[in-house]
Amino acid sequence: MSTVESSSARDLPPAARVRRLAEHVGATVRVQGWLANRRSAGKLQFLQVRDGSGTVQCVGRKNVLGDELFEQLDGLSQESSLEVWGEVKADERSPGGVELQMAGARVVRAAAEYPITNKEHSTGFLMAHRHLWLRSSKQAATLRVRSRIIKAIRDFFDSRDFVNFDAPMFTPSACEGTSTLFEVDYFGEPAYLTQSGQLYGEAGAMALGKIYTFGPTFRAEKSKTRRHLTEFWMIEPEVAFATLDDVMDLAEDFLCSVVQDVLKDCRPELELLGRDLSKLEAIQKPFPRLSYDEAIEKLKELGHEVPWGEDFGAPDEEALVAAYDKPLLVHRYPHPVKAFYMKRDPNDDRVALCVDVLAPEGYGEIIGGSERADDLDYLLDQIQKHELPMEAFEWYLDLRRFGSVPHGGFGLGLERTVAWITGTRHIRECIPFPRMLHKIYP
Amino acid sequence: MSTVESSSARDLPPAARVRRLAEHVGATVRVQGWLANRRSAGKLQFLQVRDGSGTVQCVGRKNVLGDELFEQLDGLSQESSLEVWGEVKADERSPGGVELQMAGARVVRAAAEYPITNKEHSTGFLMAHRHLWLRSSKQAATLRVRSRIIKAIRDFFDSRDFVNFDAPMFTPSACEGTSTLFEVDYFGEPAYLTQSGQLYGEAGAMALGKIYTFGPTFRAEKSKTRRHLTEFWMIEPEVAFATLDDVMDLAEDFLCSVVQDVLKDCRPELELLGRDLSKLEAIQKPFPRLSYDEAIEKLKELGHEVPWGEDFGAPDEEALVAAYDKPLLVHRYPHPVKAFYMKRDPNDDRVALCVDVLAPEGYGEIIGGSERADDLDYLLDQIQKHELPMEAFEWYLDLRRFGSVPHGGFGLGLERTVAWITGTRHIRECIPFPRMLHKIYP
Repeated sequence: MSTVESSSARDLPPAARVRRLAEHVGATVRVQGWLANRRSAGKLQFLQVRDGSGTVQCVGRKNVLGDELFEQLDGLSQESSLEVWGEVKADERSPGGVELQMAGARVVRAAAEYPITNKEHSTGFLMAHRHLWLRSSKQAATLRVRSRIIKAIRDFFDSRDFVNFDAPMFTPSACEGTSTLFEVDYFGEPAYLTQSGQLYGEAGAMALGKIYTFGPTFRAEKSKTRRHLTEFWMIEPEVAFATLDDVMDLAEDFLCSVVQDVLKDCRPELELLGRDLSKLEAIQKPFPRLSYDEAIEKLKELGHEVPWGEDFGAPDEEALVAAYDKPLLVHRYPHPVKAFYMKRDPNDDRVALCVDVLAPEGYGEIIGGSERADDLDYLLDQIQKHELPMEAFEWYLDLRRFGSVPHGGFGLGLERTVAWITGTRHIRECIPFPRMLHKIYP
Repeated sequence: MSTVESSSARDLPPAARVRRLAEHVGATVRVQGWLANRRSAGKLQFLQVRDGSGTVQCVGRKNVLGDELFEQLDGLSQESSLEVWGEVKADERSPGGVELQMAGARVVRAAAEYPITNKEHSTGFLMAHRHLWLRSSKQAATLRVRSRIIKAIRDFFDSRDFVNFDAPMFTPSACEGTSTLFEVDYFGEPAYLTQSGQLYGEAGAMALGKIYTFGPTFRAEKSKTRRHLTEFWMIEPEVAFATLDDVMDLAEDFLCSVVQDVLKDCRPELELLGRDLSKLEAIQKPFPRLSYDEAIEKLKELGHEVPWGEDFGAPDEEALVAAYDKPLLVHRYPHPVKAFYMKRDPNDDRVALCVDVLAPEGYGEIIGGSERADDLDYLLDQIQKHELPMEAFEWYLDLRRFGSVPHGGFGLGLERTVAWITGTRHIRECIPFPRMLHKIYP
């Protein structure tokens, strides 16, 4: 192996990132990255060099590079690190519209034989090598889109004067039942990892008017499905004085804004992932809205009989959304299938003022929201009926004792949203290091 | 108590947020919020109404409001929720430059007797009522600045093409020793909560070039100090091909950018908090940089004898930074006092290529960074010497087996940064719900 030298300039051309090479056509620049692939054709060789922002084809001629360097590159293993420099040439056939005519190169460090090749690998193998699998073009593209989605989410709320309000990870109690809680030894006492920042977000909304939490949440899910992780990120806006209609309008504006931002900046990634962009371009207001009652009727038409009062199963949801090309808002579910803190509909005591947003194309529920119960006595009653520990909720009840107001919000699952927008079937590929049942390495 | 009605318009004037009232001078608007304070003077009363974005004085005249409403407002308890509407008048004496001439009002819900009054309360009392204490003007201002700092941090990295790369919370091992780890029951197996996203961030940098992690991190700190929380947020950029000089330049540009953004948007909050703005305006490039050796010399001049090889204590750091009005970069500490993954200085094998950034005014270390060891054999040796579990680091060592490159990054503690910028002595006030030894409620 050659030694790693300092990357400082040493009279080499200025460094440029692959994604921005089209801005440098005609200039001589240096790309710092890794060898993704290569092939030779006599006195020519073609190196695919990736730098994390994209991949560029670098064309090396033996008469330019000299015999020694040409041979060294010719034998270079996949994922070896290197610097390559030369003139940026416009080339319409190339993915980024450019290629690099190599004037020189330097191997930083030759790689050992790389375990991930162009062959098919099992998912188990790839997951065990997640730290390397991240380097593949599709995984890297998915994570760049994830990053852009995070920014789009934050930009939406920041531009509307929401305050980012971080909810705690350690909590003394569960928000929605105790069966899927992770327990931590907190200096000898039991504590639990948060399942939702919402209750804390409500305290934030009473203090700051409009807030959003955005952080990891945890569920000890024993089911292995393509839609579940034990650790996933949630964004949860909460708005004082908001009604269910306000919550639905906010969710609609929000999803449109996120999809538009991603379409604006991530076309190369979405194309690389084979995403049908027309499906995303269709995400425009207004979204269809069905009450639970209307959804039951619609399902009956579609051949799915769901008895009133039951929650929808995944096949029901898939049948329902197949009728639309936009996210579908289903509101006012029977209150027993929803959380204790939701407000009842004053016009129909059987249902809660809640909404689920189902992603199109069968990507499942991405948002759950509601108007929150603002009456102290109602909440006291609910906590007793759900057999939740009253003392753990005393602070939450204080929010109704001191200046209760109508308020509401929703929670969006980040990884499910990334799966939908990128067209990824399994959410384990939508987070850098997924955590699942019996899976925390690497 | 009056009942909570829907907040939908009901022929009332349009709602406006307090922070934006100056844009509505001469217009009639409605403010939705809580009664922070009030006083009466005969047929006049002055309500201080807060809505989470700020507080506005609302002037009520008996002849306008009518006897019944005037009396109702006159007896209203602190933190009662209400809507108030009327014309926005410019008023130079008011904090936001405006006040509201009340045309009407509606009590949403009268509050029970509020526990936090204008009297002095003990910190223990306030912390036990954190969910309500958040509503006080200083706590709310601190959290609005926190939110703006988070945005400034993200904007800095996003605008420089960094990819936001979330590191996992559940980890199989410790990054920097095991004494302060929180253990979780992970489906019957032990797992640990992350102390730093860095090692995962390095995998991200090899895949994506430039990344930053931004999430909660955990330390089971048994010491109760004003600078420690068990759960705190860290931002950790990691850059492929970066040297220590690059890391120091990045940290310097980064801190300047964050302080400037906050100064631009948060003057009302900083003034309310009594922050000396001139101290923040002085945060301009270049920052002073001292090697550890130079710092030892400087400390000797200041009467602090530190034997070469020892880490600095808090009193040493405070003496050192008192000589400067900007963050101080101290680089190249003796390697035994630093983490195993740091690269040695090729020009002086006794020291690591690392940097600590000490905030001015005694706010302590806010950044720790380094160039990372990129040589496989060196790391193997270090992991053995530190008696770390080799099998847990196999994936990390792969980053050196397959395309190792010089790289580096740093970690910034969010709450310490908020404390410094807002001038808050104790970091427990710099996060919505602080977690400390034996303290996870509310």
